Amino acid sequence: MNLEAKTVRQFFRAAFLGLMIVSVPAAAFADAKGKREPVENFLLDNGMEVVVIPDHRAPIVTHMVWYKVGSADEPPGKSGIAHFFEHLMFKGTTNHKPGEFDAAVAAIGGSENAFTSYDYTTYHETIPPDALGTMMALEADRMRNLILTDAVIGPERDVVLEERRSRIEGDPESLLSEEVQATLYQNHPYRVPVIGWMHEMEKLNRDDAVAFYNQYYRPNNAVLVVAGDVEADQVRKLAEETYGKVARGPDLPPRIRPTEPEQNTGRTVTMVDARVTIPSFAKYWLAPSYRTAEPGEAEALDLLSEILGGGTRSRLYQQLVVKDGIAAGSGAYYDGTALDETSFTVYGSPRGSDGLQKLENEVDAEIARVQRDGIGADELEKAKNRLVRSMVFAQDSPSSLANMYGSALTTGSTVKDVQAWPDRIKSVTADQVKAVAVKYLKPHQSVTAYLLPSQETSN
Amino acid sequence: MNLEAKTVRQFFRAAFLGLMIVSVPAAAFADAKGKREPVENFLLDNGMEVVVIPDHRAPIVTHMVWYKVGSADEPPGKSGIAHFFEHLMFKGTTNHKPGEFDAAVAAIGGSENAFTSYDYTTYHETIPPDALGTMMALEADRMRNLILTDAVIGPERDVVLEERRSRIEGDPESLLSEEVQATLYQNHPYRVPVIGWMHEMEKLNRDDAVAFYNQYYRPNNAVLVVAGDVEADQVRKLAEETYGKVARGPDLPPRIRPTEPEQNTGRTVTMVDARVTIPSFAKYWLAPSYRTAEPGEAEALDLLSEILGGGTRSRLYQQLVVKDGIAAGSGAYYDGTALDETSFTVYGSPRGSDGLQKLENEVDAEIARVQRDGIGADELEKAKNRLVRSMVFAQDSPSSLANMYGSALTTGSTVKDVQAWPDRIKSVTADQVKAVAVKYLKPHQSVTAYLLPSQETSN
Repeated sequence: MNLEAKTVRQFFRAAFLGLMIVSVPAAAFADAKGKREPVENFLLDNGMEVVVIPDHRAPIVTHMVWYKVGSADEPPGKSGIAHFFEHLMFKGTTNHKPGEFDAAVAAIGGSENAFTSYDYTTYHETIPPDALGTMMALEADRMRNLILTDAVIGPERDVVLEERRSRIEGDPESLLSEEVQATLYQNHPYRVPVIGWMHEMEKLNRDDAVAFYNQYYRPNNAVLVVAGDVEADQVRKLAEETYGKVARGPDLPPRIRPTEPEQNTGRTVTMVDARVTIPSFAKYWLAPSYRTAEPGEAEALDLLSEILGGGTRSRLYQQLVVKDGIAAGSGAYYDGTALDETSFTVYGSPRGSDGLQKLENEVDAEIARVQRDGIGADELEKAKNRLVRSMVFAQDSPSSLANMYGSALTTGSTVKDVQAWPDRIKSVTADQVKAVAVKYLKPHQSVTAYLLPSQETSN
Repeated sequence: MNLEAKTVRQFFRAAFLGLMIVSVPAAAFADAKGKREPVENFLLDNGMEVVVIPDHRAPIVTHMVWYKVGSADEPPGKSGIAHFFEHLMFKGTTNHKPGEFDAAVAAIGGSENAFTSYDYTTYHETIPPDALGTMMALEADRMRNLILTDAVIGPERDVVLEERRSRIEGDPESLLSEEVQATLYQNHPYRVPVIGWMHEMEKLNRDDAVAFYNQYYRPNNAVLVVAGDVEADQVRKLAEETYGKVARGPDLPPRIRPTEPEQNTGRTVTMVDARVTIPSFAKYWLAPSYRTAEPGEAEALDLLSEILGGGTRSRLYQQLVVKDGIAAGSGAYYDGTALDETSFTVYGSPRGSDGLQKLENEVDAEIARVQRDGIGADELEKAKNRLVRSMVFAQDSPSSLANMYGSALTTGSTVKDVQAWPDRIKSVTADQVKAVAVKYLKPHQSVTAYLLPSQETSN
C-alpha cells in the first residue's frame, strides 16, 4: 500500500534527475490497436458515475474509485485534510476491523494504492476478475462506514506529519516547489501544497475529518472506473449491488474556487541550501487547463510543450544538451489535466556547477524564437505523432487507461472529450502553437525558481 | 467625504516621493503634556465598547466608530466586500433618505471620513460638542437600518470598480505593491488587496453585502471612540440613548485567520513599466505585530525601523543620501499595528537612473552591520526619544488620539497597552534591537520588489 500525495506539479525532482517528462493529458483514443469494445459510461440511481473499459488481453481488472475532491477543495486553514483523509480510509469500518481491508485485498491476490491531488482523491486496486464483487463491497463499505474516533485520528496524524517531514522538509527541491506554487498562485488554492502545511496539519482533528467525510465521500461525488477483463453488464450489476446501496448525499455545490487576478510582474523564488549539489532553474507561467482553455488552446500547449521540451527530440534538449553541451538537462512541461488554471514550465540545469544564467538565457531565447518564427510543419507533425503514440502506449495497460478516464472525469472532461482528444491534437495548426506561446509565455510575467548550492550567491 | 481604502502597507508611493515615513504604532502615553483627565473605557449592555478621551483645549469632538472587520476577514473569493460595504454605509436607511447622512453632518458643521484596512473599518466625524447626540443617532441608525437593494448596490459597485481602475490599475507602484503582498503572504489573507481584485469585485452582489452587514455591523463588534471636548458621563449617557438601543448580534467567532507556513526562500517581484521614471526597490520580511510578538520584540522592531530608516537622522538616510550621495531616498518601515503577522521593510531609490544594485547592496550591508555589531547606546536613546515624541505630537489632536486607540483596540491591544507603550519603548535594550534584526531580517528569506522603467532590463 503506497499512500501517496501525488502532487501533479511536483515535477521538479524529475527535472533534476534529467528524466524525460511525458505529458499525460486527459485523453486517449479508441480503436488504436484493432477493434475494441466500446467504453461504457452510466450513472447509478444514487448519482455515482461508472466508466467501464473492457480489455480482455489479460485476466486482470483495475478497479478505481475517484472522489471529486482534492486539496484545492479544502477550507482555508485546513490544508492537508484531503490527503490525511486518504490515509484514514484505510482504517476500520463498522463492518471491517482495522487491517481487514488490506488483508482482504492481499487475500484475493490484489494490489492497492491511493493518491491525493489538487483536484481528486483516488483509490485503486488491481485484482483478478472474479474478485471484483468482493472489491466493490469493500470499497463501498468504506465510502460511508468508517469509524473516525480520536484513537484513530491521532496516530494517523502523526503518520502524515512524519510523511511531510521526510518527503518535504528534508528535501530542498520539494520545499522550493511549494514556495513556487505559493508565488505563482496569488489567490487560487493550487498555491497550497497537497500534503498540507505543517502548522495546519498539526491541528487537523476529528471534527475536520468527519466534516470532510460527510461532505465529499458520497456516491454522487464519486466516479467508478473499471478497466480490464470485464463486461459492462457485469460491472453494472455488481455496482448496483454494492455502491448502489449507498445512499445519495446532499447535492454538492459547484466546484468554483477563487481565481487568479491579472498578474503584471515577473517573480523569482530562490532556495539556497547546502544539500544542493548542482544548480538548476525552472520557469513557470499560468496557463489554461483543458477545462478552462479556449477551444484548441490546451491542445496547442500540449504540442508546444512537446516541441519545446517534451523529451530527447525536443528543441531544448537537442540544442542545449546535445549540440551546445551547456545543459545537463532541459525540458518543458504542461499539465492540462486540472480543474482550474494550470501552469506551463521550462527548466534546466547546467553541465557543471556554473553557467546557470547562460543556460536560462538560452532557454529564454528558444522560447522567443518560437514566439517570433513559429514552428515548422515537419516538427509539428512529428510532435503530434509522438503525443498520439504516447496514448497508444497508455492503452496497453488497464490501469493507465483507467487513470486517463478517471483524471479526466474528475477535472471537468467527459468520456467523449477523452476519445476525441487525438483528433483534436491532429487538427492543431502551427499558427495555433505559435499563438499560445505568445499569449501565455510572457517574458515579464513568469515565476522563476532557482535551486542553488550554499556557496553560490543568490541569483 | 473621502471614501478611502487605506492600505496600511501601501507605503510604496511615499517611499518613492522621498517622504519620511513616521511609524505610528498602536500606542500613546498619558500625562505627557501636563495633567489630563483619564481615558475612560467601558462596555454598553449590548457589548459595544466605548473609549472616551477628554481633551478640552478646543471646542471640537472626534467621533469614531470602529468595526472589528477588515478585508482580511472577507470570505475567499469575495475580495473587496469590506471596502465596498464602507461605501454602502453612506446610502439611505429606513429612517434617512440617501444623502441625508452627509447633509446632516454638513448641517451641524462637521466633517466626515471613512476608511477600510486589513483589520478594521472606520467611520469618523469631527463635529462641535453639542452635535454629539445627533451624530451618534445618525451613526447608530446606519449600523442596522441600511436599505440594501440591487438599485443601491449596482451603481455603487461601479463606483468602487472605477476607484480601483483609477487608483490601482493606473498606477504601477500600486500594482507592484499588490503582487508583493501576494508573494510575501503565502497563506494569510493579508496577501489580498484591501480594495479587492477586479475580477472578484465585479461579482460582489446584494447577497454578499447583506451577509457581511448582518455578520459584522453589530454593536458587539464595534468600538466607539470619542475624543475632545467631552466628559465621560455625558458620552455614556448619549451612547446608551443611541447605540445602546441597537440589539446585540450573535457572538462572532474569534478572528483566527490562516497563518503563514515556514518560509525558506528569497523572492523577487519585478514590475517593468513605461510610466516609471526612476528605478527603486523595497525589501520585505515577515515580522510579528504587537499582538503576535514575543514580549518586547515589537517595540524593538519599532526602534530598529527608527534607527535604520525612520527619517533623515536614520542610518540609511545619513549614509546613503547624505554621505555617499548614491540614493535619492532610503528608509525603513515597520507596521506593528496589525492583528496578525506583519512586515518590516527597507527601501531605496538611486540618485539618477542606474545604481539600483549598488544601492541595494549598501542597504543590505547596513542591515548586516546592525546584525553583526548591534547599535550604540546613544543612537538607541535618541531613537527612543524620537518615537516617544512622535506620540506627544499625536496627542495634540483629538483625531490622532482617537485613531491611536481605535486602531489598537481593533487589532488586539487594550487601552492599558496603549498607555504603557512609552514605558515599554524606554525599556528596550540595544541587545534586543540587535536580536530582532538577526531573527527577522534574514538575508535569504525576504521578498524584494523592483520597480523599473521599461528600458531597463529586469534585475
